[in-house]
Amino acid sequence: MTSFKKPSSKELAHDYLWRFHKVVPARGMTGVFNRSYYEDLLVDRVNNLVADDVWQARYEQINQFEKYLTDTGTTILKFFLHISKKEQKKRFVERLELSEKQWEFSRDDLLKREHWKAYQSAFENMLNLCTTPWAPWHLIPANQKWCRNRAATRVIVKTLRHLDPQFPPPDEGLHKIEIV
Amino acid sequence: MTSFKKPSSKELAHDYLWRFHKVVPARGMTGVFNRSYYEDLLVDRVNNLVADDVWQARYEQINQFEKYLTDTGTTILKFFLHISKKEQKKRFVERLELSEKQWEFSRDDLLKREHWKAYQSAFENMLNLCTTPWAPWHLIPANQKWCRNRAATRVIVKTLRHLDPQFPPPDEGLHKIEIV
Repeated sequence: MTSFKKPSSKELAHDYLWRFHKVVPARGMTGVFNRSYYEDLLVDRVNNLVADDVWQARYEQINQFEKYLTDTGTTILKFFLHISKKEQKKRFVERLELSEKQWEFSRDDLLKREHWKAYQSAFENMLNLCTTPWAPWHLIPANQKWCRNRAATRVIVKTLRHLDPQFPPPDEGLHKIEIV
Repeated sequence: MTSFKKPSSKELAHDYLWRFHKVVPARGMTGVFNRSYYEDLLVDRVNNLVADDVWQARYEQINQFEKYLTDTGTTILKFFLHISKKEQKKRFVERLELSEKQWEFSRDDLLKREHWKAYQSAFENMLNLCTTPWAPWHLIPANQKWCRNRAATRVIVKTLRHLDPQFPPPDEGLHKIEIV
């Protein structure tokens, strides 16, 4: 599992996919990305951090990147966990009030909440333009955690059944080995 | 300068562009690749290491990768140093005979020489299919080193003139600093 935060100055000195490609899982491995290059379609756009043509070009760049990863053997599952504005308020209030949740609170999240509408538009474009045959978005209703977990698990289980992963083959002659 | 050798088992466990993308130069930096992902169009094909549709898909994948790098700010110069079969023989013989060149000799190079024709076809496809407006191949006659150097330098100088690199801005107030 890799959680991506604000890019470091070293990461910012590279193309935006660089830090993600570096840590894609190897053959036979599973990786979970918490946030991803999709932030580069969202934060940069809503906050006007880059020119319009820069973030607009990213939809196609990301689609091509995911096509390449898929064609070279990676299965990509993308989950968009959607919560309502009301539910978000409830969670933020909890984080402010419960001492065991306060560490989760970030003023940065509040700034994003102020741009709720702009983010919804950015989400909509992202979901529409980056849902491809090779890597569709899965929209997960996430107000209730049991529902979120069930919906995401269904997709994961279905995919794993299809991939049908096998144990690596054992060394030969294991039956002759005696542990003393 | 990065010299790429046979991929390690860790590198082979990833998509073939992974080890190259990891080390592309950052903004403002220059990098030289000695060999590159173009080997994945050549060695794998000539030696039937992968199925035909696998190496055939790579032309377009590489074009897209280079388009992405170009669109996100990297200038790519690709040089194909061409020598004749006769000149190659001369160089191999030198490496066998001169003690100060023997370290350069590799039996692997001889195996490649045996597949000279197959490599020429693979080169031709590579040069034709991966010469794009954003990253054309430069064919450099390399039998004679002065000619090779001149031809490559011309391209590099022209590109640098166009890029017009500047020194990074100095800290403010440098004129007030006195070194005692």
